[in-house]
Amino acid sequence: MSRFTPLLQQLIDALRVLPGVGPKSAQRMAFALLERNREGGLQLGAALNAAMTKVGHCQQCRTFSETDLCSICADPARAEDGIICVVGSAADQLAIEQTGQFSGRYFVLQGYLSPLDGIGPQDLGLDKLQQLFADNKVQELILATNPTVEGDATAFYIAELCHRQNVKVSRIAQGIPVGGELEFVDGTTLSHAFSGRKAF
Amino acid sequence: MSRFTPLLQQLIDALRVLPGVGPKSAQRMAFALLERNREGGLQLGAALNAAMTKVGHCQQCRTFSETDLCSICADPARAEDGIICVVGSAADQLAIEQTGQFSGRYFVLQGYLSPLDGIGPQDLGLDKLQQLFADNKVQELILATNPTVEGDATAFYIAELCHRQNVKVSRIAQGIPVGGELEFVDGTTLSHAFSGRKAF
Repeated sequence: MSRFTPLLQQLIDALRVLPGVGPKSAQRMAFALLERNREGGLQLGAALNAAMTKVGHCQQCRTFSETDLCSICADPARAEDGIICVVGSAADQLAIEQTGQFSGRYFVLQGYLSPLDGIGPQDLGLDKLQQLFADNKVQELILATNPTVEGDATAFYIAELCHRQNVKVSRIAQGIPVGGELEFVDGTTLSHAFSGRKAF
Repeated sequence: MSRFTPLLQQLIDALRVLPGVGPKSAQRMAFALLERNREGGLQLGAALNAAMTKVGHCQQCRTFSETDLCSICADPARAEDGIICVVGSAADQLAIEQTGQFSGRYFVLQGYLSPLDGIGPQDLGLDKLQQLFADNKVQELILATNPTVEGDATAFYIAELCHRQNVKVSRIAQGIPVGGELEFVDGTTLSHAFSGRKAF
Protein backbone atom coordinates (compact mmCIF):
# COMPACT_ATOMS: atom_id res chain seq x y z
CA MET A 1 0.00 0.00 0.00
CA SER A 2 2.02 2.92 -1.23
CA ARG A 3 -1.16 4.99 -1.05
CA PHE A 4 -4.75 4.45 -0.08
CA THR A 5 -7.53 2.88 -2.06
CA PRO A 6 -8.72 5.39 -4.76
CA LEU A 7 -11.97 6.59 -3.16
CA LEU A 8 -10.27 7.02 0.22
CA GLN A 9 -7.44 9.00 -1.38
CA GLN A 10 -10.01 11.15 -3.21
CA LEU A 11 -11.77 11.86 0.09
CA ILE A 12 -8.47 12.82 1.79
CA ASP A 13 -7.59 15.15 -1.10
CA ALA A 14 -11.09 16.67 -1.16
CA LEU A 15 -11.03 17.39 2.59
CA ARG A 16 -8.06 19.70 2.03
CA VAL A 17 -10.35 22.36 0.48
CA LEU A 18 -11.36 23.13 4.08
CA PRO A 19 -9.32 26.01 5.55
CA GLY A 20 -6.71 24.87 8.08
CA VAL A 21 -6.85 21.21 7.02
CA GLY A 22 -3.50 19.76 5.90
CA PRO A 23 -2.64 16.24 4.70
CA LYS A 24 -2.39 14.72 8.20
CA SER A 25 -5.66 16.24 9.48
CA ALA A 26 -7.44 15.24 6.27
CA GLN A 27 -6.27 11.66 6.76
CA ARG A 28 -7.38 11.68 10.40
CA MET A 29 -10.80 13.07 9.41
CA ALA A 30 -11.32 10.50 6.66
CA PHE A 31 -10.40 7.59 8.96
CA ALA A 32 -12.55 8.91 11.80
CA LEU A 33 -15.60 9.12 9.52
CA LEU A 34 -15.01 5.70 7.93
CA GLU A 35 -14.32 3.99 11.25
CA ARG A 36 -16.90 5.56 13.49
CA ASN A 37 -19.40 7.81 11.76
CA ARG A 38 -20.39 6.93 8.20
CA GLU A 39 -23.88 8.27 8.85
CA GLY A 40 -22.44 11.66 9.83
CA GLY A 41 -20.20 11.62 6.77
CA LEU A 42 -23.17 11.03 4.49
CA GLN A 43 -25.08 13.85 6.20
CA LEU A 44 -22.12 16.17 5.73
CA GLY A 45 -21.99 15.22 2.04
CA ALA A 46 -25.68 16.00 1.62
CA ALA A 47 -25.40 19.29 3.57
CA LEU A 48 -22.45 20.39 1.42
CA ASN A 49 -24.31 19.58 -1.75
CA ALA A 50 -27.45 21.44 -0.65
CA ALA A 51 -25.60 24.51 0.66
CA MET A 52 -23.22 24.86 -2.33
CA THR A 53 -26.06 24.68 -4.85
CA LYS A 54 -28.90 26.45 -3.01
CA VAL A 55 -27.42 29.17 -0.79
CA GLY A 56 -27.28 32.40 -2.79
CA HIS A 57 -27.11 36.07 -1.84
CA CYS A 58 -29.80 38.46 -0.61
CA GLN A 59 -30.71 40.75 -3.53
CA GLN A 60 -30.58 43.79 -1.30
CA CYS A 61 -27.79 43.32 1.27
CA ARG A 62 -25.72 40.54 -0.36
CA THR A 63 -25.57 38.35 2.77
CA PHE A 64 -25.99 34.58 2.32
CA SER A 65 -29.64 33.71 1.79
CA GLU A 66 -31.72 30.97 0.25
CA THR A 67 -34.49 33.43 -0.58
CA ASP A 68 -34.41 36.62 -2.69
CA LEU A 69 -34.46 38.77 0.45
CA CYS A 70 -32.79 37.68 3.69
CA SER A 71 -34.83 37.66 6.90
CA ILE A 72 -33.44 41.06 7.99
CA CYS A 73 -34.11 42.84 4.67
CA ALA A 74 -37.59 41.27 4.60
CA ASP A 75 -38.40 42.69 8.06
CA PRO A 76 -40.03 46.16 7.65
CA ALA A 77 -39.22 47.10 11.28
CA ARG A 78 -35.50 47.00 10.51
CA ALA A 79 -35.83 49.44 7.61
CA GLU A 80 -37.65 52.10 9.68
CA ASP A 81 -34.73 54.27 10.79
CA GLY A 82 -32.91 53.99 7.45
CA ILE A 83 -29.57 53.08 9.04
CA ILE A 84 -27.34 50.67 7.13
CA CYS A 85 -24.26 49.01 8.59
CA VAL A 86 -21.60 48.03 6.05
CA VAL A 87 -19.62 44.88 6.97
CA GLY A 88 -17.03 42.80 5.15
CA SER A 89 -18.51 39.33 5.60
CA ALA A 90 -21.55 37.43 6.86
CA ALA A 91 -19.45 36.34 9.87
CA ASP A 92 -18.90 40.02 10.81
CA GLN A 93 -22.63 40.61 10.37
CA LEU A 94 -23.38 37.74 12.77
CA ALA A 95 -20.92 39.12 15.34
CA ILE A 96 -22.69 42.50 15.30
CA GLU A 97 -26.15 40.93 15.27
CA GLN A 98 -25.24 38.89 18.36
CA THR A 99 -24.52 42.06 20.37
CA GLY A 100 -28.21 42.97 19.96
CA GLN A 101 -27.20 46.68 19.81
CA PHE A 102 -28.05 47.34 16.17
CA SER A 103 -31.60 47.35 14.85
CA GLY A 104 -31.05 48.62 11.29
CA ARG A 105 -30.15 46.77 8.13
CA TYR A 106 -26.79 45.57 6.81
CA PHE A 107 -24.86 45.68 3.60
CA VAL A 108 -22.42 42.77 3.26
CA LEU A 109 -19.49 43.49 0.93
CA GLN A 110 -18.35 39.83 0.83
CA GLY A 111 -14.74 41.05 0.58
CA TYR A 112 -12.70 44.25 0.46
CA LEU A 113 -11.28 46.39 -2.33
CA SER A 114 -8.04 44.81 -3.47
CA PRO A 115 -6.84 46.01 -6.88
CA LEU A 116 -3.92 43.53 -6.87
CA ASP A 117 -6.38 40.63 -6.62
CA GLY A 118 -8.65 42.27 -9.20
CA ILE A 119 -11.40 43.04 -6.67
CA GLY A 120 -13.00 46.37 -7.62
CA PRO A 121 -16.11 48.32 -6.47
CA GLN A 122 -18.50 46.32 -8.67
CA ASP A 123 -17.31 43.03 -7.07
CA LEU A 124 -18.41 44.39 -3.68
CA GLY A 125 -21.84 45.38 -5.03
CA LEU A 126 -21.22 49.09 -4.44
CA ASP A 127 -23.49 49.87 -7.41
CA LYS A 128 -26.33 48.29 -5.42
CA LEU A 129 -25.38 50.42 -2.42
CA GLN A 130 -25.49 53.59 -4.55
CA GLN A 131 -28.90 52.53 -5.84
CA LEU A 132 -30.10 52.50 -2.21
CA PHE A 133 -28.74 56.08 -1.82
CA ALA A 134 -30.56 57.14 -5.02
CA ASP A 135 -33.82 55.62 -3.75
CA ASN A 136 -33.47 57.80 -0.61
CA LYS A 137 -33.56 54.69 1.56
CA VAL A 138 -30.46 55.57 3.59
CA GLN A 139 -30.42 58.11 6.44
CA GLU A 140 -27.07 57.07 7.84
CA LEU A 141 -24.36 54.63 6.85
CA ILE A 142 -22.21 53.02 9.57
CA LEU A 143 -18.91 51.61 8.34
CA ALA A 144 -17.93 48.45 10.28
CA THR A 145 -15.15 47.20 8.01
CA ASN A 146 -12.08 45.43 9.42
CA PRO A 147 -9.37 47.74 10.86
CA THR A 148 -6.90 46.47 8.24
CA VAL A 149 -5.32 48.12 5.18
CA GLU A 150 -7.97 46.68 2.84
CA GLY A 151 -10.79 47.41 5.28
CA ASP A 152 -9.60 51.01 5.74
CA ALA A 153 -9.24 51.59 1.99
CA THR A 154 -12.72 50.21 1.37
CA ALA A 155 -14.15 52.37 4.16
CA PHE A 156 -12.54 55.52 2.67
CA TYR A 157 -13.91 54.65 -0.77
CA ILE A 158 -17.47 54.15 0.52
CA ALA A 159 -17.29 57.30 2.69
CA GLU A 160 -16.38 59.25 -0.44
CA LEU A 161 -19.47 57.86 -2.22
CA CYS A 162 -21.61 58.95 0.74
CA HIS A 163 -20.17 62.48 0.79
CA ARG A 164 -20.88 62.85 -2.90
CA GLN A 165 -24.51 61.87 -2.40
CA ASN A 166 -24.94 63.77 0.90
CA VAL A 167 -25.51 60.64 2.98
CA LYS A 168 -24.46 60.84 6.64
CA VAL A 169 -21.62 58.41 7.23
CA SER A 170 -19.86 57.25 10.41
CA ARG A 171 -17.36 54.60 11.37
CA ILE A 172 -17.39 52.35 14.45
CA ALA A 173 -14.93 53.51 17.13
CA GLN A 174 -11.36 52.25 17.23
CA GLY A 175 -9.76 52.08 20.67
CA ILE A 176 -8.68 49.74 23.41
CA PRO A 177 -10.74 46.52 23.65
CA VAL A 178 -12.70 45.83 26.84
CA GLY A 179 -10.73 43.61 29.23
CA GLY A 180 -7.44 44.30 27.44
CA GLU A 181 -4.35 45.42 29.31
CA LEU A 182 -3.00 48.80 28.28
CA GLU A 183 0.65 47.74 28.27
CA PHE A 184 -0.06 45.07 25.63
CA VAL A 185 -2.13 47.28 23.32
CA ASP A 186 -0.25 48.26 20.16
CA GLY A 187 0.76 51.87 19.51
CA THR A 188 -1.60 52.55 16.60
CA THR A 189 -4.60 51.37 18.58
CA LEU A 190 -3.50 53.52 21.54
CA SER A 191 -3.21 56.64 19.39
CA HIS A 192 -6.65 55.91 17.91
CA ALA A 193 -7.93 55.57 21.48
CA PHE A 194 -6.44 58.98 22.39
CA SER A 195 -7.67 60.83 19.34
CA GLY A 196 -11.13 59.28 19.79
CA ARG A 197 -11.40 60.12 23.52
CA LYS A 198 -14.81 61.10 24.90
CA ALA A 199 -15.91 63.42 27.72
CA PHE A 200 -16.30 61.43 30.95
CA MET B 1 -30.36 37.26 12.00
CA SER B 2 -30.28 35.40 15.29
CA ARG B 3 -28.91 32.42 13.35
CA PHE B 4 -27.98 31.63 9.78
CA THR B 5 -30.21 30.64 6.92
CA PRO B 6 -31.34 26.96 7.40
CA LEU B 7 -29.08 25.26 4.81
CA LEU B 8 -26.05 27.24 6.02
CA GLN B 9 -26.78 26.30 9.63
CA GLN B 10 -27.20 22.65 8.60
CA LEU B 11 -23.82 22.76 6.88
CA ILE B 12 -22.15 24.30 9.95
CA ASP B 13 -23.71 21.64 12.20
CA ALA B 14 -22.76 18.83 9.80
CA LEU B 15 -19.11 19.97 9.61
CA ARG B 16 -18.80 19.31 13.34
CA VAL B 17 -18.73 15.55 12.74
CA LEU B 18 -15.11 16.08 11.66
CA PRO B 19 -12.64 15.48 14.51
CA GLY B 20 -11.17 18.70 15.94
CA VAL B 21 -13.79 20.96 14.35
CA GLY B 22 -15.73 23.13 16.83
CA PRO B 23 -18.49 25.67 16.18
CA LYS B 24 -16.14 28.52 15.20
CA SER B 25 -14.03 26.42 12.80
CA ALA B 26 -17.17 24.93 11.28
CA GLN B 27 -18.50 28.43 10.63
CA ARG B 28 -15.20 29.53 9.10
CA MET B 29 -15.10 26.44 6.86
CA ALA B 30 -18.68 26.94 5.68
CA PHE B 31 -18.07 30.62 4.86
CA ALA B 32 -14.77 29.87 3.10
CA LEU B 33 -16.44 27.29 0.85
CA LEU B 34 -19.47 29.46 0.09
CA GLU B 35 -17.40 32.57 -0.57
CA ARG B 36 -14.48 31.17 -2.49
CA ASN B 37 -14.74 27.51 -3.41
CA ARG B 38 -18.20 26.16 -4.14
CA GLU B 39 -16.74 23.80 -6.73
CA GLY B 40 -14.41 22.31 -4.10
CA GLY B 41 -17.32 22.03 -1.67
CA LEU B 42 -19.35 20.07 -4.21
CA GLN B 43 -16.38 17.78 -4.90
CA LEU B 44 -15.97 17.17 -1.17
CA GLY B 45 -19.68 16.32 -0.94
CA ALA B 46 -19.39 13.81 -3.78
CA ALA B 47 -16.15 12.30 -2.37
CA LEU B 48 -17.78 11.86 1.05
CA ASN B 49 -20.80 10.21 -0.48
CA ALA B 50 -18.70 7.83 -2.58
CA ALA B 51 -16.29 6.91 0.22
CA MET B 52 -18.95 6.40 2.91
CA THR B 53 -21.01 4.10 0.72
CA LYS B 54 -18.34 2.24 -1.28
CA VAL B 55 -15.24 1.85 0.90
CA GLY B 56 -15.50 -1.45 2.76
CA HIS B 57 -12.97 -3.74 4.40
CA CYS B 58 -10.54 -6.27 2.91
CA GLN B 59 -11.97 -9.74 3.57
CA GLN B 60 -8.60 -11.01 4.70
CA CYS B 61 -6.79 -8.19 6.56
CA ARG B 62 -9.69 -5.82 7.40
CA THR B 63 -7.98 -2.70 6.07
CA PHE B 64 -10.10 -0.23 4.09
CA SER B 65 -10.65 -1.49 0.56
CA GLU B 66 -13.13 -1.05 -2.25
CA THR B 67 -12.48 -4.58 -3.47
CA ASP B 68 -12.84 -7.94 -1.66
CA LEU B 69 -9.08 -8.18 -1.24
CA CYS B 70 -6.86 -5.13 -0.74
CA SER B 71 -3.87 -4.63 -3.04
CA ILE B 72 -1.44 -6.08 -0.46
CA CYS B 73 -3.47 -9.23 0.26
CA ALA B 74 -3.98 -9.69 -3.50
CA ASP B 75 -0.20 -9.60 -4.10
CA PRO B 76 1.20 -13.17 -3.92
CA ALA B 77 4.78 -11.90 -3.35
CA ARG B 78 3.75 -10.44 0.01
CA ALA B 79 2.35 -13.75 1.25
CA GLU B 80 5.56 -15.70 0.52
CA ASP B 81 7.31 -15.51 3.88
CA GLY B 82 4.08 -15.92 5.87
CA ILE B 83 4.76 -12.96 8.17
CA ILE B 84 1.77 -10.94 9.34
CA CYS B 85 2.03 -7.58 11.10
CA VAL B 86 -0.91 -6.74 13.39
CA VAL B 87 -1.73 -3.01 13.60
CA GLY B 88 -4.52 -1.02 15.23
CA SER B 89 -5.61 1.13 12.30
CA ALA B 90 -5.12 1.71 8.58
CA ALA B 91 -3.16 4.87 9.47
CA ASP B 92 -0.67 2.75 11.46
CA GLN B 93 -0.46 0.36 8.51
CA LEU B 94 0.38 3.27 6.20
CA ALA B 95 3.08 4.53 8.59
CA ILE B 96 4.77 1.10 8.55
CA GLU B 97 4.29 0.67 4.80
CA GLN B 98 5.99 4.03 4.20
CA THR B 99 9.17 2.86 5.97
CA GLY B 100 9.55 0.27 3.17
CA GLN B 101 11.04 -2.15 5.76
CA PHE B 102 8.24 -4.68 5.87
CA SER B 103 7.38 -6.94 2.95
CA GLY B 104 4.79 -9.23 4.54
CA ARG B 105 1.07 -8.81 4.99
CA TYR B 106 -0.94 -6.95 7.61
CA PHE B 107 -3.86 -7.58 9.85
CA VAL B 108 -5.73 -4.38 10.74
CA LEU B 109 -7.69 -4.61 14.01
CA GLN B 110 -9.60 -1.34 13.39
CA GLY B 111 -9.54 -0.68 17.13
CA TYR B 112 -8.34 -2.23 20.38
CA LEU B 113 -9.94 -4.46 23.00
CA SER B 114 -11.95 -2.24 25.32
CA PRO B 115 -14.50 -4.16 27.42
CA LEU B 116 -15.92 -0.93 28.88
CA ASP B 117 -16.83 0.27 25.36
CA GLY B 118 -18.13 -3.19 24.49
CA ILE B 119 -15.29 -3.91 22.04
CA GLY B 120 -14.45 -7.61 22.27
CA PRO B 121 -12.28 -10.04 20.25
CA GLN B 122 -14.95 -10.59 17.58
CA ASP B 123 -15.16 -6.81 16.90
CA LEU B 124 -11.44 -6.84 16.04
CA GLY B 125 -11.88 -9.80 13.69
CA LEU B 126 -9.68 -12.10 15.79
CA ASP B 127 -11.75 -15.07 14.58
CA LYS B 128 -10.46 -14.29 11.06
CA LEU B 129 -6.91 -14.13 12.40
CA GLN B 130 -7.31 -17.56 14.05
CA GLN B 131 -8.67 -18.90 10.77
CA LEU B 132 -5.37 -17.83 9.14
CA PHE B 133 -3.49 -19.74 11.87
CA ALA B 134 -5.63 -22.83 11.24
CA ASP B 135 -4.96 -22.61 7.50
CA ASN B 136 -1.23 -22.72 8.30
CA LYS B 137 -0.72 -19.42 6.50
CA VAL B 138 1.20 -17.73 9.32
CA GLN B 139 4.90 -18.36 10.06
CA GLU B 140 5.35 -15.38 12.36
CA LEU B 141 3.12 -12.70 13.79
CA ILE B 142 4.58 -9.25 14.56
CA LEU B 143 2.57 -7.18 17.03
CA ALA B 144 2.72 -3.47 16.20
CA THR B 145 -0.10 -2.23 18.41
CA ASN B 146 0.05 1.18 20.09
CA PRO B 147 2.16 1.32 23.30
CA THR B 148 -0.95 2.26 25.31
CA VAL B 149 -3.00 0.37 27.90
CA GLU B 150 -5.52 -0.80 25.27
CA GLY B 151 -2.78 -1.60 22.74
CA ASP B 152 -0.80 -3.58 25.34
CA ALA B 153 -3.86 -5.53 26.48
CA THR B 154 -4.75 -6.38 22.88
CA ALA B 155 -1.15 -7.45 22.20
CA PHE B 156 -1.14 -9.77 25.23
CA TYR B 157 -4.46 -11.28 24.16
CA ILE B 158 -3.25 -11.98 20.61
CA ALA B 159 0.11 -13.30 21.85
CA GLU B 160 -1.81 -15.79 24.01
CA LEU B 161 -3.77 -16.97 20.93
CA CYS B 162 -0.45 -17.47 19.09
CA HIS B 163 1.10 -19.46 21.93
CA ARG B 164 -1.93 -21.74 22.01
CA GLN B 165 -1.62 -22.44 18.28
CA ASN B 166 2.18 -22.61 18.27
CA VAL B 167 2.62 -19.56 16.06
CA LYS B 168 5.85 -17.58 16.53
CA VAL B 169 4.99 -14.14 17.84
CA SER B 170 7.10 -11.00 18.40
CA ARG B 171 6.50 -7.39 19.28
CA ILE B 172 8.17 -4.32 17.76
CA ALA B 173 10.86 -2.85 20.03
CA GLN B 174 10.05 -0.17 22.58
CA GLY B 175 12.86 2.27 23.39
CA ILE B 176 14.08 5.79 22.86
CA PRO B 177 12.94 7.37 19.57
CA VAL B 178 15.60 8.42 17.04
CA GLY B 179 16.50 12.10 17.40
CA GLY B 180 14.95 12.32 20.88
CA GLU B 181 16.86 13.73 23.82
CA LEU B 182 17.43 11.33 26.67
CA GLU B 183 16.60 13.83 29.40
CA PHE B 184 13.10 14.34 28.02
CA VAL B 185 12.27 10.65 27.55
CA ASP B 186 9.80 9.35 30.15
CA GLY B 187 10.87 6.78 32.74
CA THR B 188 8.82 3.87 31.43
CA THR B 189 10.27 4.26 27.94
CA LEU B 190 13.79 4.47 29.40
CA SER B 191 13.34 1.27 31.38
CA HIS B 192 11.98 -0.46 28.25
CA ALA B 193 15.09 0.80 26.43
CA PHE B 194 17.36 -0.67 29.14
CA SER B 195 15.65 -4.05 29.33
CA GLY B 196 15.61 -4.24 25.53
CA ARG B 197 19.34 -3.34 25.12
CA LYS B 198 21.26 -5.07 22.32
CA ALA B 199 24.92 -6.12 21.96
CA PHE B 200 26.88 -3.31 20.26
